[in-house]
Amino acid sequence: MDVEIISIGGYEEVGKNMTAVKVGKDIVIFDMGIHLDRVHIHEDTNLARMHSLELINRGVIPDDTIMRNVDGNVRAIVFTHGHLDHIGAVTKLAEKYNAPIISTPYTLGLIERMLKSEKKFNVLKRLQVLKGGEKCQISSNIILEFIHVTHSIPHSVIAVLHTPVGAIVYALDFKFDNHQIISPPPQYSRLRKLGKENVFALIVESTRVGEVCEVKTHSERIARFVLEDIMKNLLDEKVGIIITTFSSHIERIQAIADIVEENSNRHMLILGRSMERYCSIAENMELLKLPENASIYGNPKAVSQALARATANKEDYVLITTGHQGEPDALLPRIANSKTPYKIQKTDNIIISAPVIPHPVNTANRYLMEKRLQARGARIFTDVHVSGHAGREDHRDLIRMLNPMHIIPAHGDLQMLSAYAELAEEEGYNLGEDIHLLRNGQAQVFEGGQ
Amino acid sequence: MDVEIISIGGYEEVGKNMTAVKVGKDIVIFDMGIHLDRVHIHEDTNLARMHSLELINRGVIPDDTIMRNVDGNVRAIVFTHGHLDHIGAVTKLAEKYNAPIISTPYTLGLIERMLKSEKKFNVLKRLQVLKGGEKCQISSNIILEFIHVTHSIPHSVIAVLHTPVGAIVYALDFKFDNHQIISPPPQYSRLRKLGKENVFALIVESTRVGEVCEVKTHSERIARFVLEDIMKNLLDEKVGIIITTFSSHIERIQAIADIVEENSNRHMLILGRSMERYCSIAENMELLKLPENASIYGNPKAVSQALARATANKEDYVLITTGHQGEPDALLPRIANSKTPYKIQKTDNIIISAPVIPHPVNTANRYLMEKRLQARGARIFTDVHVSGHAGREDHRDLIRMLNPMHIIPAHGDLQMLSAYAELAEEEGYNLGEDIHLLRNGQAQVFEGGQ
Amino acid sequence: MDVEIISIGGYEEVGKNMTAVKVGKDIVIFDMGIHLDRVHIHEDTNLARMHSLELINRGVIPDDTIMRNVDGNVRAIVFTHGHLDHIGAVTKLAEKYNAPIISTPYTLGLIERMLKSEKKFNVLKRLQVLKGGEKCQISSNIILEFIHVTHSIPHSVIAVLHTPVGAIVYALDFKFDNHQIISPPPQYSRLRKLGKENVFALIVESTRVGEVCEVKTHSERIARFVLEDIMKNLLDEKVGIIITTFSSHIERIQAIADIVEENSNRHMLILGRSMERYCSIAENMELLKLPENASIYGNPKAVSQALARATANKEDYVLITTGHQGEPDALLPRIANSKTPYKIQKTDNIIISAPVIPHPVNTANRYLMEKRLQARGARIFTDVHVSGHAGREDHRDLIRMLNPMHIIPAHGDLQMLSAYAELAEEEGYNLGEDIHLLRNGQAQVFEGGQ
Amino acid sequence: MDVEIISIGGYEEVGKNMTAVKVGKDIVIFDMGIHLDRVHIHEDTNLARMHSLELINRGVIPDDTIMRNVDGNVRAIVFTHGHLDHIGAVTKLAEKYNAPIISTPYTLGLIERMLKSEKKFNVLKRLQVLKGGEKCQISSNIILEFIHVTHSIPHSVIAVLHTPVGAIVYALDFKFDNHQIISPPPQYSRLRKLGKENVFALIVESTRVGEVCEVKTHSERIARFVLEDIMKNLLDEKVGIIITTFSSHIERIQAIADIVEENSNRHMLILGRSMERYCSIAENMELLKLPENASIYGNPKAVSQALARATANKEDYVLITTGHQGEPDALLPRIANSKTPYKIQKTDNIIISAPVIPHPVNTANRYLMEKRLQARGARIFTDVHVSGHAGREDHRDLIRMLNPMHIIPAHGDLQMLSAYAELAEEEGYNLGEDIHLLRNGQAQVFEGGQ
Repeated sequence: MDVEIISIGGYEEVGKNMTAVKVGKDIVIFDMGIHLDRVHIHEDTNLARMHSLELINRGVIPDDTIMRNVDGNVRAIVFTHGHLDHIGAVTKLAEKYNAPIISTPYTLGLIERMLKSEKKFNVLKRLQVLKGGEKCQISSNIILEFIHVTHSIPHSVIAVLHTPVGAIVYALDFKFDNHQIISPPPQYSRLRKLGKENVFALIVESTRVGEVCEVKTHSERIARFVLEDIMKNLLDEKVGIIITTFSSHIERIQAIADIVEENSNRHMLILGRSMERYCSIAENMELLKLPENASIYGNPKAVSQALARATANKEDYVLITTGHQGEPDALLPRIANSKTPYKIQKTDNIIISAPVIPHPVNTANRYLMEKRLQARGARIFTDVHVSGHAGREDHRDLIRMLNPMHIIPAHGDLQMLSAYAELAEEEGYNLGEDIHLLRNGQAQVFEGGQ
Repeated sequence: MDVEIISIGGYEEVGKNMTAVKVGKDIVIFDMGIHLDRVHIHEDTNLARMHSLELINRGVIPDDTIMRNVDGNVRAIVFTHGHLDHIGAVTKLAEKYNAPIISTPYTLGLIERMLKSEKKFNVLKRLQVLKGGEKCQISSNIILEFIHVTHSIPHSVIAVLHTPVGAIVYALDFKFDNHQIISPPPQYSRLRKLGKENVFALIVESTRVGEVCEVKTHSERIARFVLEDIMKNLLDEKVGIIITTFSSHIERIQAIADIVEENSNRHMLILGRSMERYCSIAENMELLKLPENASIYGNPKAVSQALARATANKEDYVLITTGHQGEPDALLPRIANSKTPYKIQKTDNIIISAPVIPHPVNTANRYLMEKRLQARGARIFTDVHVSGHAGREDHRDLIRMLNPMHIIPAHGDLQMLSAYAELAEEEGYNLGEDIHLLRNGQAQVFEGGQ
Repeated sequence: MDVEIISIGGYEEVGKNMTAVKVGKDIVIFDMGIHLDRVHIHEDTNLARMHSLELINRGVIPDDTIMRNVDGNVRAIVFTHGHLDHIGAVTKLAEKYNAPIISTPYTLGLIERMLKSEKKFNVLKRLQVLKGGEKCQISSNIILEFIHVTHSIPHSVIAVLHTPVGAIVYALDFKFDNHQIISPPPQYSRLRKLGKENVFALIVESTRVGEVCEVKTHSERIARFVLEDIMKNLLDEKVGIIITTFSSHIERIQAIADIVEENSNRHMLILGRSMERYCSIAENMELLKLPENASIYGNPKAVSQALARATANKEDYVLITTGHQGEPDALLPRIANSKTPYKIQKTDNIIISAPVIPHPVNTANRYLMEKRLQARGARIFTDVHVSGHAGREDHRDLIRMLNPMHIIPAHGDLQMLSAYAELAEEEGYNLGEDIHLLRNGQAQVFEGGQ
Repeated sequence: MDVEIISIGGYEEVGKNMTAVKVGKDIVIFDMGIHLDRVHIHEDTNLARMHSLELINRGVIPDDTIMRNVDGNVRAIVFTHGHLDHIGAVTKLAEKYNAPIISTPYTLGLIERMLKSEKKFNVLKRLQVLKGGEKCQISSNIILEFIHVTHSIPHSVIAVLHTPVGAIVYALDFKFDNHQIISPPPQYSRLRKLGKENVFALIVESTRVGEVCEVKTHSERIARFVLEDIMKNLLDEKVGIIITTFSSHIERIQAIADIVEENSNRHMLILGRSMERYCSIAENMELLKLPENASIYGNPKAVSQALARATANKEDYVLITTGHQGEPDALLPRIANSKTPYKIQKTDNIIISAPVIPHPVNTANRYLMEKRLQARGARIFTDVHVSGHAGREDHRDLIRMLNPMHIIPAHGDLQMLSAYAELAEEEGYNLGEDIHLLRNGQAQVFEGGQ
């Protein structure tokens, strides 16, 4: 039986992930993401209103037009977690394929909201839940399994296709973290068991593999303890506290909520449109457990009113806001720019619980935001964060656990994919033989499953 | 006789230079510049319309309010060259001081144009020419001398105040370049002669002193030869050529004009509002000598018409445009963004004859511009440039020539001033004794001229 | 009463710290360290055998010859912790001053061993213990107080001289860490109380103040948890484990011992001459509490025998060795170079619980060591470490707690001292007014204590 | 007819280049270089005395044992220039292959000297000259052509195999430089003509393709002019002048000689063992034309005597020495370390006409050398250099000129090869289709020449 791995998107960039795996005549699609860099370059991009072909031309979403020439039937569209570089193009691309959309509850919750807001009601009907640790039959030849793993958003999984030629593992994105609050540790024993059977191919993220610091990515508990050390000093002083982090990082937001609740009577205000989206879905699913006196506001008017209350009694509040990259329209940059009722002054403390995502536009936006905050006297704690992506030695562990026949690094530019290839070479693999470097729009064919 | 050196601006940043030297009761002011970084941070800054106090509060222009407490009479306002970080605040600050404005012809030409456009006619009357190599009496105690030097704009000088306690030398900005086309080599022998007499103090720029590459700054002839190597290959092919550089860098523009004229029949189009300002004044003064078939357009409509002609017959033109930092409103970024009649395609060649001036906003703007040009197929030659600022070993040469009693590094942040201090220490000076690190708004007092 | 702060060493480098404080006629000397960089540059330097003047000329130890011209009486030599850049020159310089040598028990233990090995018995008699939290009278005008603080070696203190003009605080080196095992949290309340009284001057380290990441230095518990995550995976596998860290970092070694004991039956071997020195003194003082089955060997023959045992049964041992910087004569680099009985192979895991201390020679040594280990198949976990030095925001906290009249940044090159000055400016101080940048061999005089 | 490109060495590093091209049954070997990094890692490596297999195991020379399994006859061993990473293993590997050794005169001169010193007299007989611009028949199916090109050593060529399937071009190493003194400009027209015929494959160096500055590598005339600007100031002062550069960089040494001769009466002393080797061969071939009063000394005693003369009358000499990387046994580092009769003092000027070749050991050695020179008062001019390797836009020009069917990037680690692949993709090629990333020991087979 022939196997084909089609690299649609995410093989030349960090972003717009999409991969198709064809086993015999059955096709499974993994992820449909967007690429935010391209929105910077094409400033007038309107994701909601533009047609998929236009977005494909701009490089904003994966170019799945190559699928037209693939002879087979799409049996499932699988999403492994809810970040936009993995699900962001679902409203544009999913309707082309008449197949169930399978994912974990939180991921599906996010997808459902996107589909509703773009009125894709016909696609909505195809949503199908599969939890971490569960399996389902996709076609006569393929069983899909979700192995629970940790990342920086709840309900992340490594997906496995059990096929006649062996298991095909799709591991985008993950970290190995044994100390999260919301998510249990990864199912290492299941991964090891798979590795003792027969893993035909591993498709794997490569975003951090080339980095020389933190070769084993730190656990979220590190971020939690650093946050605690910074926050404890501030919570009982008469000062303002604003924390900004990823809206989808429910684990981090839970940690912040716990620290606030244990150490003060301050009210938590979770503010900003995307904060509202991710947190309210997470709260409804009982993933995020907020204290009684916490509030979530996404609507601009409600946000504005909350800020007006907070600015008058800063010592009674902790704000969690959008804007960690300094995006001009997000909340913290707008506060920094005096465009909201909240007045920054010398007693304000800003904790940026996020890195600068490497991009010149982010660097500039963050610079301007920080300078404006500092000009008004605020104290800033930067980079209170740990990554959600596996480091070099975590990847080595995954290879050793799974012992795959073939490796296809994904989710990175050529430098990152190459760094993964060098790691795999250290583990005994050979580039061009059992390590395959693909580019967007290519396919790796294994004839007779070899 | 007491001497006082008052560091008004440019001692905490690269920008908004302004220094006052007080000898007895006579005061000479050097430079009145602006700080462009602050315009990024305060986006709504309008230089032409805002009051000086507002601009001072925003850090855009030097805070000269400290001069109110200085007991003495301003005898002259001296500008050593025409860059905006040295002359840009003249329309805001000069009117406060009832004193002649002394500078070289090209610098005065630029100042005149600024004063006219802001209708500062009363200030206009006070302009007074002094050429490189000339002297004039400022007060009974002070003679001002201009020593010709090289930089990246014509008519740059090192200013010397001959005072009863010795010479006070103001060397912002300069490089030692023996191979410029328009400007003759610096007056080294005059500097050496000064050094054998009695230099009391040297106030000196420090922007590049800490850099470890190009410890002696390369001559403009290096930029000329690199440009020539790149351009010769392109001029006789049927391709588009766009060059962007500093509008004030008349020397560079002359070099480009010479290369075009010697190697092709292409027409030169010098385009953009600030290109028009700097080049037309330089052409009127016969500093810039353009070929017959060259044209300069600053008016948007005329620029647009020129671009329409050029896009239709790219092989007949060489364009010199504004926009080397990717500034969104400048010409090349607008071309890159398809906002002009000029259509970028695979045959276009862009030569960026400028560095990225280190600032996150510039880095982001340049990134976006280059990505847009490349997305349309253009080939880009970056960083075809040499600096206009003295390197570490040039500064060592200046110290050895002048042999000053005191050194006050200027025009830099504390890291740059410190790097200069370390250089001076290598030459036998001591921090806090005869090297003085000043901050904006401070003064170094030498009682009895010691 | 006049106060003078004499910056003898450590004001142009990270190393060879030595400061004298003169109050009236009484002098207190803080620290007598060495500068390891100079030993690299002068390869034939022999610390034990060379005369102090020769070492001074080479820049290896502070040039205290300037003290000859200081009119006063040395009343005490005070050491604030036991690192070599603070105590390493005690055998060369202490004998010149007829004064008690005051320090905490562990620091004195280290000094005692150094003095004995260089046979400075007359100096030995002058050792005098003062614990963190205690005070003693130094002269009629001066009381010395030790405030307990945390760093990367036990028994570190901030020293305070209570004088007629106010407190003079010497804070080299420290971090604010509330979660160490051996050392209790710093005496914040005492520092705050001092600040409410009258702190005349703060002399303070500046090694990390300019760094933009970890603006509040992470607690040791972070290193502990990262070590635990890495080690737990390894301890129950049949693999070799070698950990290298600072010999003086007893806190870290204790953490490693605890992790080993809680998670395995492996024997700990603490190996290498300097490991033996620091650990056995710490163990004797009951600072370091090792499990029953742990052994410490410093003697080369004993080390060699221990390695021979360990290489035969790697799964029964955890080795803690010297050599984290790749120093050619230390143990781990010698193991990497196959110069010991321990044979590195694919099952060996090396954990480097130390940073590369920034210096080209360290970078080269570490590179060579890691390449050699990897060439033999070892797996390396680098940079499992947190700093022992306060970050930018910790320094801000210290300034706010102490509220000193004057600040003298120390322990750094001019770039580091300048970075501290910029921080102090943010807190309302002014360079040259109440922030004083000193260079080695200078003095800051406060006449009449002002 | 099948074509096979066998990547023996240089596909995972900058160093030990060796590639075999098999056309039908005929094999041509290109280059046999060494990898200096490995000599650092295996300190006891003795190139002259060790057996090839031992050197192969250490990674010092290419692992050509894979050639045993290649079915075919080696028809020629071709060297394209004389750098050690291309010819350094000739004494170890050439004797295995019974085939003529073909190269340009200067390259053969260097090879001859190496073979003689290792007494490989049987190999010596097989040397065969082919000049740039000439062709020779290698086998019934293959004609070898040398196209003259520029690099940083004289007599560099791009080699072309004319085969039944088209031309196979081997372009390691080159730059496009139209302004060298010794070497004429590259044969662009010949390259363009080849491109209009049929280039089957391009094997091409990739060392600088990923660098973002100097996208078109500067001409040697730039180095010449920068040297001239620095030297002219020094030559007529009573100071010492020492210049260090690559011994093989005859073009650079000629430029220095010309500048000295035109501007002074100083004697040139060319000193050091490898200086003697490269320069005397070049002088004998009349490539290097030294002034009457120049001398070359390689023998340690003669060098020492020359240094003794020079130190006594520094103003009468210019020294050109080995040691630009700070290698401890080379001449300039020994001078810096006071191990020669030449005494460094404040009037000495050191011009380092070489970059730091990126490697931690070089960085450390250069650091120590510079610190020692500065400690004795010398003034240092660093990085007076331009690269000998093509930049990104030069590579683009080569691709456009040759228009090859297949591209195999070589001479680089995976990051460099990948950067070349990205450039080739910009020019319309596709990775894995007509761009081939090979690793040491692999082969790319083109069946039926496709």
